[in-house]
Amino acid sequence: MTDTTSPLRLGIAGLGTVGVGVVRIIRQQAALLEARTGRKITISAVSARSKDKDRGVPLSDYAWEDDPVALAKRDDVDVFVELMGGDAGPAKDATEAAIAAGKDVVTANKAMLAIHGQALAEAAEAAACVIRYEAAVAGGIPVMKALTEGLAGNDITRVMGVMNGTCNYILTQMQATRQGYNALFAEADKLGYLEADPNLDVGGIDAGHKLALLASVAFGTQVNFDAVALEGIQNVTLEDIDAAHDMGYRIKLLGVAQMTGRGLEQRMSPCLVPSNSPLGQLEGGTNMVVIEGDAVGQIVLRGAGAGEGPTASAVLSDIIDIARGLRLPTFGQPAASLTQARAATAAVPAPYYLRMQLVDKPGALAKVAAVLGDAGVSIDRMRQYGHQDTAAPVLIVTHKTTRTALDEALSAMDPNIVMGTPVAIRIEEVD
Amino acid sequence: MTDTTSPLRLGIAGLGTVGVGVVRIIRQQAALLEARTGRKITISAVSARSKDKDRGVPLSDYAWEDDPVALAKRDDVDVFVELMGGDAGPAKDATEAAIAAGKDVVTANKAMLAIHGQALAEAAEAAACVIRYEAAVAGGIPVMKALTEGLAGNDITRVMGVMNGTCNYILTQMQATRQGYNALFAEADKLGYLEADPNLDVGGIDAGHKLALLASVAFGTQVNFDAVALEGIQNVTLEDIDAAHDMGYRIKLLGVAQMTGRGLEQRMSPCLVPSNSPLGQLEGGTNMVVIEGDAVGQIVLRGAGAGEGPTASAVLSDIIDIARGLRLPTFGQPAASLTQARAATAAVPAPYYLRMQLVDKPGALAKVAAVLGDAGVSIDRMRQYGHQDTAAPVLIVTHKTTRTALDEALSAMDPNIVMGTPVAIRIEEVD
Repeated sequence: MTDTTSPLRLGIAGLGTVGVGVVRIIRQQAALLEARTGRKITISAVSARSKDKDRGVPLSDYAWEDDPVALAKRDDVDVFVELMGGDAGPAKDATEAAIAAGKDVVTANKAMLAIHGQALAEAAEAAACVIRYEAAVAGGIPVMKALTEGLAGNDITRVMGVMNGTCNYILTQMQATRQGYNALFAEADKLGYLEADPNLDVGGIDAGHKLALLASVAFGTQVNFDAVALEGIQNVTLEDIDAAHDMGYRIKLLGVAQMTGRGLEQRMSPCLVPSNSPLGQLEGGTNMVVIEGDAVGQIVLRGAGAGEGPTASAVLSDIIDIARGLRLPTFGQPAASLTQARAATAAVPAPYYLRMQLVDKPGALAKVAAVLGDAGVSIDRMRQYGHQDTAAPVLIVTHKTTRTALDEALSAMDPNIVMGTPVAIRIEEVD
Repeated sequence: MTDTTSPLRLGIAGLGTVGVGVVRIIRQQAALLEARTGRKITISAVSARSKDKDRGVPLSDYAWEDDPVALAKRDDVDVFVELMGGDAGPAKDATEAAIAAGKDVVTANKAMLAIHGQALAEAAEAAACVIRYEAAVAGGIPVMKALTEGLAGNDITRVMGVMNGTCNYILTQMQATRQGYNALFAEADKLGYLEADPNLDVGGIDAGHKLALLASVAFGTQVNFDAVALEGIQNVTLEDIDAAHDMGYRIKLLGVAQMTGRGLEQRMSPCLVPSNSPLGQLEGGTNMVVIEGDAVGQIVLRGAGAGEGPTASAVLSDIIDIARGLRLPTFGQPAASLTQARAATAAVPAPYYLRMQLVDKPGALAKVAAVLGDAGVSIDRMRQYGHQDTAAPVLIVTHKTTRTALDEALSAMDPNIVMGTPVAIRIEEVD
């Protein structure tokens, strides 16, 4: 494992977009890779569901395995490159087989690691193997390396990210094209931007997997996807996007992980961020991760979160690290030293954006303000729009408050004053 | 050198802002650092110009050396941490002594490495030592790691950066406060933002050092600061900042390194970038590096480029890498394999921004357009402002052209038509 001069031999399981991208780089950039690692990087064998499909790259130089488990165990494979996806099934079976056979693993599989990461990390360390997964989080952005190594001198205070390009595409296109969520969802589907199960995207699950991985490294905790408070973008309306814009904000599907006095808070949900912040300025399918540390302050990383080239670039960086002999525990420190953080929910106070319809009666607004005040929620800014029929839309930005206090206030609103259910969205405070 | 379990013992030379920051983190985050590296990180000895100065951190636990060379050679020092600065003199003497004594080196010294990097890298490799310098480029942004490791699977096509916070502060404040360069220079001086020799900042030298280091890693070339085409911000006027803004651009002191058919082009000069690009949106003292690779596309990294915490964070990341046993050649590949790139100047065509004063005569504009056309320079957009006395200010954005063709056109302008010297600034094409 520590020989760093003989060729590094790969077995690649999964020849979809990313797998083909990896094969292509290894073929086309052989000289560059050898110059940078001091050794050849070769492919011994590949595996995929269909052998005969034309994938646009020549594969006849490589042995073929129908069974990824058999691929993972081959004697001529040093590194098992898992690009099949899926949190269980063949991907996990083959990864476990690779580790059992003493192979290092490179994977882009966020679901598998978010759910089984602790067990896999323990197995890998017991076998003196490494598991690398730069491609699992934010595509081509070298964020796992930045967090695990580049910022390792920091007590990390908060990690945030817009890490699902499809959701950000839908949200920014809603504003740009004046269409509602359903129309943009259909467009994203037509463009092939959605996972086979679209809820992985629009339900925030895919981005939630990524957040759980970031949180583990950032806070030295066992990865715990179940503790991520998930909320998708399905209920975001054009009305709220416009109103937020009027108040100086953009709505993003934002992941936030933060250690609090009450435990580790992990949220993946629509949030308002200032329009002029890097997160607010992020358009379309691009990803962004913001890392805040006690010494470094704020670091922002931006790049393509998906696609053949960017994801293959991330896979290659892991392969190159292994070729160079850079070996770290899966989550940056020994798996046995990762703590089981208590899961905290809504522990961090924040300002909130509220949108409600008030009946057109004198004193309505004063009554709303009074109810908020009684619950300890104070108003920072407020905007009342022209009356629509008998209702007056009102936008409120509160000062920092807890979700509990806010929910208390909202449930105490007089239905004779406030029509329908008020919309409340967290405002994430970020420069 | 490859023992990664016993304590890693540091000798720190230079106890200015950064040195004190490093001492502070090592004292305050001892448990975190040990959890992440699996070993203790300790300070054996320190060195600075004045022993008695109160620096706000206790130093009595550490041996004191008046001479940094003596510090570098101490038996109880594994890593020599050079934070004195200066391209030659004590910093270089001590670094060479450390390498000769078989110590690894961590430094924040961009000038030393930009000028003597190749020789130091060769010496370090011959002695099986590493030289790390994350803090030398863009402060707290982990950009050397991103480029050397995270994006190592890419053929890098261009590296760009706004890497001098003082210059970006002056330029953004000029626009915000409607003051000229001299007033903002005086303000930056008063705020302590300027180096002892301010030309290092405003002349682009400091940022040029950083660019030369990035270029070496990006293109596998011997670092060559002398080949950086340097132009400072001293001649940037509020008039041009405003006019650029009107045309949809911001003026930045931008470093660009790019491999061309004619050699390696390295420029550090005022450039126009689109207002809505990440570079255009960068305000104040923050740094940004943009890396473009064939596979990954565009990666943007943003963060604090200076200050105690951010710079110490970068120094710590290098120390942690060494503690974890991550060892790479200084410029990402063996020093002997780095090529000596031919230096190219103005090899990459670009659009240009032109501002000139035309006499108020019929046909003046047509004559300017004709002279540009004769030199092969075509006009993309043009804006003529209301007459001021007898002159009419004209702004032109050209299509892509070479600097040679542009200079030819400008020198052929009729002085009876064009008053004074036209301003020509390169527009760097960037998303």
